[in-house]
Amino acid sequence: MSAEANKSDNTGSWADISPDAARRLVIAAVQAFAERGYHATTTRDIAGRAGMSPAALYIHYKTKEELLFQISGVGHRLALGIVRDAANGGGTPAERLAAVVRSFVRWHAEHHTTARVVQYELGALSEEHYTEIAARRREIDAAVRAIIEDGVRSGGFDVPDVPGTTLAVLSLCIDVARWFSPEGRRTPDQVGDMYADLVLRMVGAAGA
Amino acid sequence: MSAEANKSDNTGSWADISPDAARRLVIAAVQAFAERGYHATTTRDIAGRAGMSPAALYIHYKTKEELLFQISGVGHRLALGIVRDAANGGGTPAERLAAVVRSFVRWHAEHHTTARVVQYELGALSEEHYTEIAARRREIDAAVRAIIEDGVRSGGFDVPDVPGTTLAVLSLCIDVARWFSPEGRRTPDQVGDMYADLVLRMVGAAGA
Repeated sequence: MSAEANKSDNTGSWADISPDAARRLVIAAVQAFAERGYHATTTRDIAGRAGMSPAALYIHYKTKEELLFQISGVGHRLALGIVRDAANGGGTPAERLAAVVRSFVRWHAEHHTTARVVQYELGALSEEHYTEIAARRREIDAAVRAIIEDGVRSGGFDVPDVPGTTLAVLSLCIDVARWFSPEGRRTPDQVGDMYADLVLRMVGAAGA
Repeated sequence: MSAEANKSDNTGSWADISPDAARRLVIAAVQAFAERGYHATTTRDIAGRAGMSPAALYIHYKTKEELLFQISGVGHRLALGIVRDAANGGGTPAERLAAVVRSFVRWHAEHHTTARVVQYELGALSEEHYTEIAARRREIDAAVRAIIEDGVRSGGFDVPDVPGTTLAVLSLCIDVARWFSPEGRRTPDQVGDMYADLVLRMVGAAGA
């Protein structure tokens, strides 16, 4: 658990959060939420894990919900960045869709602890914060849908239900965070390759 | 939330649990775990929701973990029953695989509250109980894998990675519990039909 959180940190998930104390609190919160759930975690638990006092936590985050929103916000910005980078990377719709799936799967596998918190604790966000995150989720959905629509238009894909297939593709990628284990038989890259192939089949990509 | 739990009750998920007080406690526990998470729920909360005293709860379940194990056990037995019924229903491998996916998706959509507890709180089970549930999960996996292997043998399916595809098919169905909403645009049956079609594409079923 802590190895993954450290990795998230090293690979830059939380690199933009400053000062250092705020970043340490976010990393501690991800670990605590993943282990015990949002509602079972207190700000005192989080401060303790970060080696800080509850008063020191309060300087950076007024509430536990603010911490969750920070985590969710960073997670969704990263996910949207990954999807957009792959979507804008050029190539045929099949190549772009495969690239999106590979990157999105890899992120959910490598950062499965963070991804679980981001995906399963959405209901604990305040209404205002949830609205903001939901808008980001619609952008992710739209980016994937646009590639599938491109593929249908150019004749490479055969998709009877574009919104439904978009939902299923994202769902397949997201659920990697639930079942992936670093001790499992597949690396994040291998899962990404396998899933890219499966998704091309789902959209009926010619030659897949 | 309570409408779904009641529905689970009415449609028989918990019908085999007796006496009535034990069944009421399980229904209350599912609701509480789904709303607040396992670790944030106390046996006192559960007893209160069921209109009982903590002492009355203790007659039926010695610990909160026993309640979770009961929920997980019933959930997995139902899931295995659904998969086996569909798998043994006759027809071609494509027909059987489509039937499994339709039933499994419908269950995860209709009982999404229960399914979320079953899927996301596995880590809170004792080691002994987890071992028992994990065996049931392997049986579910094996039933689906057998159909895919049948399809490959008889030439109807084209599947380069049978264990990986089995994992992806089950993952796609399970994640329905995360995103499904009764207020959404699709009924459980419609999601089941759409997913059956997508899964036949994933296995390269001829004519899909």
